[in-house]
Amino acid sequence: MLQSELFTKTLKQAPKDEEAINAQLLIRAGFIHKEMAGVYSYLPLGLMVIEKIKQIIREEMNAIGGKELIMTTLQSKELWEKTDRWDDKKVDIWFKSKLKSGTEVGLGWSHEEQITEMMKEYIQSYRDLPIFVYQFQTKLRNELRAKSGILRGREFLMKDMYSYTTDPAAHEDFYNQAIQSYLKVFERVGLGNDTFLTFASGGAFTQFSHEFQTLLPGGEDTIYLSREKNVAVNKEVMDDKVLDQLGLKKNDLEEVQASETGNIFNFGSIKSEQMKLYYKDEQGNSVPVILGSYGIGITRLMGVIVEKFHDEKGIIWPKSVSPFDLHLINIAKDQKDSDKIYNALQEQGFSVLYDQRDTRAGEKFADADLIGIPTRILVSDKTLESDSVEIKDRNSERTSIVKVKDLTKSLK
Amino acid sequence: MLQSELFTKTLKQAPKDEEAINAQLLIRAGFIHKEMAGVYSYLPLGLMVIEKIKQIIREEMNAIGGKELIMTTLQSKELWEKTDRWDDKKVDIWFKSKLKSGTEVGLGWSHEEQITEMMKEYIQSYRDLPIFVYQFQTKLRNELRAKSGILRGREFLMKDMYSYTTDPAAHEDFYNQAIQSYLKVFERVGLGNDTFLTFASGGAFTQFSHEFQTLLPGGEDTIYLSREKNVAVNKEVMDDKVLDQLGLKKNDLEEVQASETGNIFNFGSIKSEQMKLYYKDEQGNSVPVILGSYGIGITRLMGVIVEKFHDEKGIIWPKSVSPFDLHLINIAKDQKDSDKIYNALQEQGFSVLYDQRDTRAGEKFADADLIGIPTRILVSDKTLESDSVEIKDRNSERTSIVKVKDLTKSLK
Repeated sequence: MLQSELFTKTLKQAPKDEEAINAQLLIRAGFIHKEMAGVYSYLPLGLMVIEKIKQIIREEMNAIGGKELIMTTLQSKELWEKTDRWDDKKVDIWFKSKLKSGTEVGLGWSHEEQITEMMKEYIQSYRDLPIFVYQFQTKLRNELRAKSGILRGREFLMKDMYSYTTDPAAHEDFYNQAIQSYLKVFERVGLGNDTFLTFASGGAFTQFSHEFQTLLPGGEDTIYLSREKNVAVNKEVMDDKVLDQLGLKKNDLEEVQASETGNIFNFGSIKSEQMKLYYKDEQGNSVPVILGSYGIGITRLMGVIVEKFHDEKGIIWPKSVSPFDLHLINIAKDQKDSDKIYNALQEQGFSVLYDQRDTRAGEKFADADLIGIPTRILVSDKTLESDSVEIKDRNSERTSIVKVKDLTKSLK
Repeated sequence: MLQSELFTKTLKQAPKDEEAINAQLLIRAGFIHKEMAGVYSYLPLGLMVIEKIKQIIREEMNAIGGKELIMTTLQSKELWEKTDRWDDKKVDIWFKSKLKSGTEVGLGWSHEEQITEMMKEYIQSYRDLPIFVYQFQTKLRNELRAKSGILRGREFLMKDMYSYTTDPAAHEDFYNQAIQSYLKVFERVGLGNDTFLTFASGGAFTQFSHEFQTLLPGGEDTIYLSREKNVAVNKEVMDDKVLDQLGLKKNDLEEVQASETGNIFNFGSIKSEQMKLYYKDEQGNSVPVILGSYGIGITRLMGVIVEKFHDEKGIIWPKSVSPFDLHLINIAKDQKDSDKIYNALQEQGFSVLYDQRDTRAGEKFADADLIGIPTRILVSDKTLESDSVEIKDRNSERTSIVKVKDLTKSLK
């Protein structure tokens, strides 16, 4: 894409009321636009990152048998009364509205109830199970305060998956597959080294749920981490009994701040019993379906990536989620060599943001650093003297000079 | 995909309160699920159709310079007060809700105001123009009645594009490109022969807007169609003066029912003046930006396709938007030949729904007819006797026998 076609401009300043580093950088670089506290639109560059993250997650969910669908934002009151979660005193983040008839409707902050209700049409027999479904859905949550940028929004994108299985063993099997799948996702988006499976509060049915916590100074959670054993315990469940149970010793644990980038949850048969989702087993008995839920906050993940990978000049995207593979910058007087390189790179399958704007070189470099595409290719009159370009990685000060004819080879 | 992995089942009956053919067939075939009147979830098959339609539209919008982004559902009251469209008396389809602080928020039924407000950050000079942006956005509209299935939903998916240009001539140029682009979209989704550019009410700024009306018995609009001149006039603006102006004669026109599948609209400078979106021209004068909007209802388009292409047995998808290219059905005792064919077809790049279920042949045929994939490939003990399969198009009763070794060649 020509950078001149990108209508967004880099900004010197983020909005004054924007406290979070992730939002400040994403706004200044033209990835997102703030609509109100906790509500952000995603501009072309931002949407590209979102789609990269979604595609990685989609591939991993499909690999363990997930089927993608999309539920609705408007949800009925009756649905949520079945599990006693309609009342604002029980769930304090509802946005609600009304149909013309006066009937109250809820705006989806979660979709377990809705998907489970729907499954009553498709699950009758053990032969219909297991079922694994997921969606990428915009959730609306009426947060009292929203000041962490896209880490905690009032409107945000989430991948939520649900598993429906016949019994605890089948559930356990999928649950463990989901853990591995999630670890692959975090690895692929560049957070693998800093994301840990964490024991957290399990609610009514199980002692623990599992979170995926990404180490982050200023993250909203405190966790106790055993790097040796590659697990952590959320402060909310941490006590001597739990440590004993998990075979951990307090002295071996590091207290660190982290941000919850994923969670998986075993509902057992509770929700199925509340909502009357039963199947007939081989003997004809009516048995409640076992339900699990598996979330990853897509926009939060994007925010965490920015929080972790940036410097004073701007964002430093991991290759896997960068909006473009390459940032090609021309500062030569004549643009024609750059144009040829741009076309050749695209023909080789690279996605390229091409800065051919009539702007000062310094401004181009500053914009490139702010936007954060991992590899920068500079074409100048000087590099062209030796039929070359200059390659620089965003996360390094080192540059290298490469012959134009060797460029695609050296990039692979 | 294995059909046994598709958790949806075909249903003999649609919900009793479902009057519209499109929703009846889509529900029975497992493409959508009804949440409440006018609110439908999209199951795996349905989401595949949606993504096919989106990709066609995306390609055409990108081809005329459109840049994709995604705005938000939550919108501020102040924004809509600027154009006097917050009041329920002025816009009678608002869903509204409240932040914890008591501040009212609107749920996006349209996004012109929001995008235009944002553009004030990016448009200062004539050098910043033109800008063409679009999104695929879930709209919420509080319709009094919702009984046309996915043709008119309370929650539905729309592609909306907006053009920002310096002057009427530049606007006109893009507007005409958009018309051609829309005609390509309708051609590609299979509605080309039945969709006509239609003169409709223009609102405050221009005499006419343009609709794209697809002929449909029971469609919500009455239009007067000149097949010879390939244009139509919406009944709402039809009078002798208009006919004169357009060079049409009443006697040459057919009165037909149609459904509005697209519309394009010239706001001129009205909205920019209301919202104070000005740019500096070459002489340094402050000039209001010219705004156009360009909509296609994605889910409505899907519904219209079903209304037009079905028979008493089920849906008949156009190839371009079918969830799969091929429906492979095995009724042979031994599944191994079918398995090989399934793998070979996928290796050749075909997407295949493979019915290897342990079910009666009659039920498989009925399901295939209901789901409506355009080409059916049958593997039976009889066809295998001559190393062959039977090919049948969904919209024909004719079958042909093709050697397995010639199959991919004959499908191309």
